[in-house]
Amino acid sequence: MPRIAVDVLLKREILDPQGRAVEDALPGLGHEGVREVRVGKHLELVVDAEGEDLAARVDAMCTGFLTNPVIESYRWRVIEEDERADG
Amino acid sequence: MPRIAVDVLLKREILDPQGRAVEDALPGLGHEGVREVRVGKHLELVVDAEGEDLAARVDAMCTGFLTNPVIESYRWRVIEEDERADG
Repeated sequence: MPRIAVDVLLKREILDPQGRAVEDALPGLGHEGVREVRVGKHLELVVDAEGEDLAARVDAMCTGFLTNPVIESYRWRVIEEDERADG
Repeated sequence: MPRIAVDVLLKREILDPQGRAVEDALPGLGHEGVREVRVGKHLELVVDAEGEDLAARVDAMCTGFLTNPVIESYRWRVIEEDERADG
């Protein structure tokens, strides 16, 4: 069964205070030259579906539950076992 | 300058209550057949560096500030403009 990674960020035109806070803190910690920091959610999950059915089901979950489509946008992809962020 | 996406999850052996809560809520919302849900952070940022310097700087930021390496693991990649989660 495919393993799905979903990335969620506030839409580009929405202020992201957490990203701003991270960006402002980095130089004081010795990390210069970093900008446009945005902070959001990352989800990984296994879905019992394939092909178009998989895409429809992941999009339904994302727009209906996992994100707030008014202020957030998302992107998802199928990942392999060795691409897991907790791997 | 390269745009970096960082995905952070609790390590696999650490209980993820948020992921568990999402997984438990999905069937009641009509989303059956989803398992192994893990919820973490997704960051996107632009770093003024390239090659090995870029890798060293992103890893230093991730281990020293953006994650808690005791309980979290991360994965990062260079993304194109059209791969932005807020795109």
